[in-house]
Amino acid sequence: MPYYPKTAPEFKSLVESLAGKKVAVIGHVRPDGDCIGSQVALCRVLRSLSIESVCVNQDDVPATLKFLVENTPFHLGADFDFSGWEVVAVDCADDKRSGADVASRIPKPLGNIDHHISNTLYGETNLIEGTSSATGEILAGYFLDCGYEIDSDTANALYVGIATDTGQFRFPSTTKHTFDLAGILIECGVDLNRVNLELYERESFAKLELLQSFLKSFTLHFDGRVCVGLLTDGIYEQVGARTEDSEGLVDYARSIDGVDIGVLVEENAGKIKGSLRAKEQKYRVDTIAKQFNGGGHAAAAGLNFDSTIEEFLPLLLKAIEVQLENVSSAS
Amino acid sequence: MPYYPKTAPEFKSLVESLAGKKVAVIGHVRPDGDCIGSQVALCRVLRSLSIESVCVNQDDVPATLKFLVENTPFHLGADFDFSGWEVVAVDCADDKRSGADVASRIPKPLGNIDHHISNTLYGETNLIEGTSSATGEILAGYFLDCGYEIDSDTANALYVGIATDTGQFRFPSTTKHTFDLAGILIECGVDLNRVNLELYERESFAKLELLQSFLKSFTLHFDGRVCVGLLTDGIYEQVGARTEDSEGLVDYARSIDGVDIGVLVEENAGKIKGSLRAKEQKYRVDTIAKQFNGGGHAAAAGLNFDSTIEEFLPLLLKAIEVQLENVSSAS
Repeated sequence: MPYYPKTAPEFKSLVESLAGKKVAVIGHVRPDGDCIGSQVALCRVLRSLSIESVCVNQDDVPATLKFLVENTPFHLGADFDFSGWEVVAVDCADDKRSGADVASRIPKPLGNIDHHISNTLYGETNLIEGTSSATGEILAGYFLDCGYEIDSDTANALYVGIATDTGQFRFPSTTKHTFDLAGILIECGVDLNRVNLELYERESFAKLELLQSFLKSFTLHFDGRVCVGLLTDGIYEQVGARTEDSEGLVDYARSIDGVDIGVLVEENAGKIKGSLRAKEQKYRVDTIAKQFNGGGHAAAAGLNFDSTIEEFLPLLLKAIEVQLENVSSAS
Repeated sequence: MPYYPKTAPEFKSLVESLAGKKVAVIGHVRPDGDCIGSQVALCRVLRSLSIESVCVNQDDVPATLKFLVENTPFHLGADFDFSGWEVVAVDCADDKRSGADVASRIPKPLGNIDHHISNTLYGETNLIEGTSSATGEILAGYFLDCGYEIDSDTANALYVGIATDTGQFRFPSTTKHTFDLAGILIECGVDLNRVNLELYERESFAKLELLQSFLKSFTLHFDGRVCVGLLTDGIYEQVGARTEDSEGLVDYARSIDGVDIGVLVEENAGKIKGSLRAKEQKYRVDTIAKQFNGGGHAAAAGLNFDSTIEEFLPLLLKAIEVQLENVSSAS
C-alpha cells in the first residue's frame, strides 16, 4: 500500500524529469535536523539514480548534524555557482526562506517538497503534505512508494529529520504513518547509537553553564502559572556560549507542574528577545508577543523589543496577566 | 502476521486458564512507566474479558504516572489481602523484585511476562521476550495477536511503557517491531498531548533547583573526558526536593561533547551515593563502581560508600584515571 498515493507519482515524474540535469537540493536558513536530513536524503537518492546532485544551504551545517553530511557533497550558498544547475527545495516554506545568498541567484525551483501548510507553492512542481510530521517523513514515503533504494546514510538522514521535527516522537504531529516509516528506516540501517550520540551527547560545557544561569534566575508569577527565566546582558560572553545555545531553554520554564506559560527573556545591549511557550493553545501567546513586535503560534511565540530586562519585564508580566484574565473569563 | 508467533498462543492459553479466577497483576518495587503501564494494560484487558482483576504494587504509583490508573483499580501491597487471588507478574525480573510486602504473601504466579533476559522464570507460565524494548511492547503484541481489544486507556498505558523504557525511542533496544506497535497504539487512541504533559511537563520547581545546583558544581577532569557533578549534603532539604528528583541528572554530565564518563556524587550525612554513566561500554564503569561497594552495567553503574565528598572524590578520580589508562592501553 503506498504511503502517499496521490503525490508519490508526481514525485516520480519530477525525479524522472531531472535525468541528465545537475540538481542543487536547497533548504532553509538556520537549518535544523529536518532540513539537513531532507537535503542529504534527496541528494543521495538522486545520485543513486545517476543524477548529478549536491546540497546547498546559505548557512553551515550545525555541529550536531555534521555527521549526516560526511559522505554527501554539501556547499555553502555564498560559495556556490548556480549557473547550469536546476534547483529542488525541501522543507522550505517560502522562496525567501532559502536565504538572500541563495534565493536571489537561483532559477525557479523545479520541485518544492515540504510539510509546512503555510508553503507558498513557489516551485514548478509543489508537493506539500501538511499532515506529515516532517519533510523527512514525506521523502521516506516517496522513496518507498517509488522503489528508490534507501541506504544507511540516507536512512540516518531521514530518521534525524523525523526524530528532531517530532521532538523525539512527542509532538502531536506524530502519527501511525510516522511510526511506520521510522520502523522501516530502522530496517534500512539507521545507526541509533550514532544518532543519539550526535544529537544528544555533544552538548558544549558553555551551553550547560547557560542553562544553569537560566535556571537560577527562575521566578514564578500569578500563583505559579507563569515561570520566567532570564539570560542577562553579557551572559553569552561570560560563559562562552553561542546564540544557538539558548535553543530549548524556554521548555524548562514551561515544564514545571502548574505552570501554564513558560517565558525566556534575553537582553543584549538594550535589545530584548523573548520566547513564550504555553501548555495549551488557548493561552494564545502569539497575541501577547504581538504587543512587542512579535508573533508566532498559539502555544509558541517570540518577540523582539528595544528595552532592558528591568524595563521590559513589568510590561510583559502585565500583558500576560491580562491574557490570563481573558482566558479565564472566556472559559 | 503475528508479532509473537511463538509465545502469543501460550499467552492466550494463560488468559483462558484465568477465566473464573480473581487475578492480581503485580509488578516491581519502585515502579517505572513500563511497570505501571504493563500492570494497568493487562488488568484492563483481563477485565474486558470478564476476568476479575486488579493491580497491586508494594509501592505507590509515581506522580507522573497517576493518570494511567485513573480508571483502573490499583492497590498498595501492604493494604491488599491476597487470599483467594491468583497472581500474574509483569516486568518483574525475579520473585523478590515485587517487594517484601508482596513476595512473601502471594502464591506462585500463574504467569510471568517480562522483557528482562535475566528473568529467573519463577512463574508457572514464563513468557520472556528478551529482545523486546519493554514489557508494554510484548503485551501490545500479545493483545493484537490474540484479538483482544485495546481501548484508549490501555493504549496510553502500553505506549507509556514503551516510550519510557526506550528513553523516547532513543535506546538501541528500539526496533522496527517497537515502532510498528507504537504506531498501532496511536491508532488505538493514545492521547499524545496528555502523555507528554504528564510525563514531561509536571516537573517540580525543587527538581529544577536541584538540577541548577548540580550543573553549577560541574568540573571537568582528564582533558575533559570526565565530568563530575555534586549534590552536597543538605541540598535536598535546602531546595525541598525528593530523593527521586535526582533521577536523570547524571545524564547531563555525560551529555557534554568530549566527555566519556559522566559522574554524579551525592553526600547524605557521611554516606556517599555515586552514579557513573559512560558513552561507550568499553569503559566498564561497573568495574570502577565495584571498588566502592557498587556494581551495574558496563556503561551505567552505581555505588554506595561511607565517606564524605571531600574524602571520596580523590579516591574515585584515581580509580577512574586507572580505568581510562587500562582502556587506552587495551585499544
